[in-house]
Amino acid sequence: MSELRKDPIIGRWVIISTERGKRPSEFVVPPPPTKGGSCPFCEGNESMTPPEIIAYREPGTQPNTPGWRIRVVPNKYPALKIEGSLGRVGEGVYDKMNGVGAHEVIVESPNHKDTLSTISTNRFEELLWAYRDRIIDLKKDTRLRYLLIFKNHGEAAGASLEHTHTQLIALPIIPKRVAEELDGSLEYFNYKERCVFCDIVRQEIMQGERVVAENQDFLAVSPYAPKSPFEVWILPKFHESNFENSQKHHYENLALLFSDVLKRMDKVLTFPPYNFILHTAPIKDSVSLQHYHWHFEIMPKLTKTAGFEWGSGFYINPTPPEEAATFLREAKI
Amino acid sequence: MSELRKDPIIGRWVIISTERGKRPSEFVVPPPPTKGGSCPFCEGNESMTPPEIIAYREPGTQPNTPGWRIRVVPNKYPALKIEGSLGRVGEGVYDKMNGVGAHEVIVESPNHKDTLSTISTNRFEELLWAYRDRIIDLKKDTRLRYLLIFKNHGEAAGASLEHTHTQLIALPIIPKRVAEELDGSLEYFNYKERCVFCDIVRQEIMQGERVVAENQDFLAVSPYAPKSPFEVWILPKFHESNFENSQKHHYENLALLFSDVLKRMDKVLTFPPYNFILHTAPIKDSVSLQHYHWHFEIMPKLTKTAGFEWGSGFYINPTPPEEAATFLREAKI
Repeated sequence: MSELRKDPIIGRWVIISTERGKRPSEFVVPPPPTKGGSCPFCEGNESMTPPEIIAYREPGTQPNTPGWRIRVVPNKYPALKIEGSLGRVGEGVYDKMNGVGAHEVIVESPNHKDTLSTISTNRFEELLWAYRDRIIDLKKDTRLRYLLIFKNHGEAAGASLEHTHTQLIALPIIPKRVAEELDGSLEYFNYKERCVFCDIVRQEIMQGERVVAENQDFLAVSPYAPKSPFEVWILPKFHESNFENSQKHHYENLALLFSDVLKRMDKVLTFPPYNFILHTAPIKDSVSLQHYHWHFEIMPKLTKTAGFEWGSGFYINPTPPEEAATFLREAKI
Repeated sequence: MSELRKDPIIGRWVIISTERGKRPSEFVVPPPPTKGGSCPFCEGNESMTPPEIIAYREPGTQPNTPGWRIRVVPNKYPALKIEGSLGRVGEGVYDKMNGVGAHEVIVESPNHKDTLSTISTNRFEELLWAYRDRIIDLKKDTRLRYLLIFKNHGEAAGASLEHTHTQLIALPIIPKRVAEELDGSLEYFNYKERCVFCDIVRQEIMQGERVVAENQDFLAVSPYAPKSPFEVWILPKFHESNFENSQKHHYENLALLFSDVLKRMDKVLTFPPYNFILHTAPIKDSVSLQHYHWHFEIMPKLTKTAGFEWGSGFYINPTPPEEAATFLREAKI
């Protein structure tokens, strides 16, 4: 069982693998990502993963056999496990709890060659429904506080398997960055009685210079103060704090815009590695919050710097978001 | 002039280069680090840098000529510039100010082949004095709030020049991570009337299992909840919030321990790329703070993941700090 440990100064929780840690030599040459053939996420290799949790399949096909379009399985090497109690204890000045949670993989296509920017928008919409289905199901576990849905695409962005997939980590804590957004947006709401994200959406549409693309329901924008170059946020134009509370036509329009943005990034940045993450309200807030607003943050991995930023929380961005947005907006896709 | 922009949700400031941003194609193939010969930091190439700010030199040698041991020069491509006023303004929901500050390079040796773990401890002590001298001087500028001293060692850790050097960025804001430490340690102090770092030092010495090395004045420890594997903090055993307020024998003992820790990392992790950063009290707090405690954080760059952590503030560490400390403590150096 892994442990969740809290930094006693800034209060950030981290997961520490305690079974047998990665030894020094294991960092020197990182394992290459699995290619084709023996890939556990390819159609036909269903037995190479733990049994599926859900799958969207062709009528008449059996679980854990071919015929699926989207398949959700437990992570074979989970950071957190679903069994057990939290066991919160102190250790002198320190606090820890058991690594209770869930770690799932959402395989986005049966085909090894697909990427999120090449699958059809219907498939993309199904992926969004899979996110929603897992959120709805995992919210029933009262030990959990937050569901983190994120994607690492490409080795440089931390993907250990090449086959296109999203990860879901269910946590008994709220991640620090999300907690900061919740606190910051609540402070803004208390002062202005408006949602800061709604204000951002209004101002960005009015100014236009940081808009990457938009449709009836969603806005893709280079944020005003991005920590990394070519970062893009996708925000609903309507106010809603919980991803899972959206309407059907919202998922349709989100799939259209999300796919469009990834295609633009591929065009402008020549198929970059990237990460994206869904920021949505914590589990306990199933009733919509007035001050928070769910959104996706997409970060192409273009620069190598990391440690200094990790140690300071301070970022130097060599590309103004207005220029990044212009490149992306004007891309011929 | 670059701009400092504030994220309106979480309040983090970033530096945005606004002169001419890095274009998409410039990210695709990063420039290789300069090797030997044409290196602007090598002895004999002093004219390749802007004129030196200070240097520790052999008696009788002239500024900007050979004969130096440590040399501080302005960064040729500064993230911030010293001229001008802050010009704080709003832009709708957003806030920005001019990129006023300083960006200096502290060249740690005239010899291209040296690294911080190979230079003598006398030289290392001189480097610490150079940090102090620059802090003392820059503190006079009332527009500045924080002096960020950090090192990127190795290309993977973000170094763009191979020749061993430290960077100093003087900022008109307090970086987010440092502000969090100041807030968190103040909260602890208000509750316990003790410094949280002093409590950590006491507990770590008593428990011993995360200690990497120590001497009379300093403790090197794998922190309890490290965000990355083999992270090490070096903390003074005595209470002091400001790096520049230490006694002469403190710098002697810090140089001895810091050099020892870097040699251990080189041995165990086979000369890893790494970052380190000095966390010290903000400029306005020249009188020692009861609740804060300066320290260095050293992070070997062993894992590739970045974007997901950036987007969540949530870290998964595959090596327990107790194991990392054992490897480092037992290394034969």
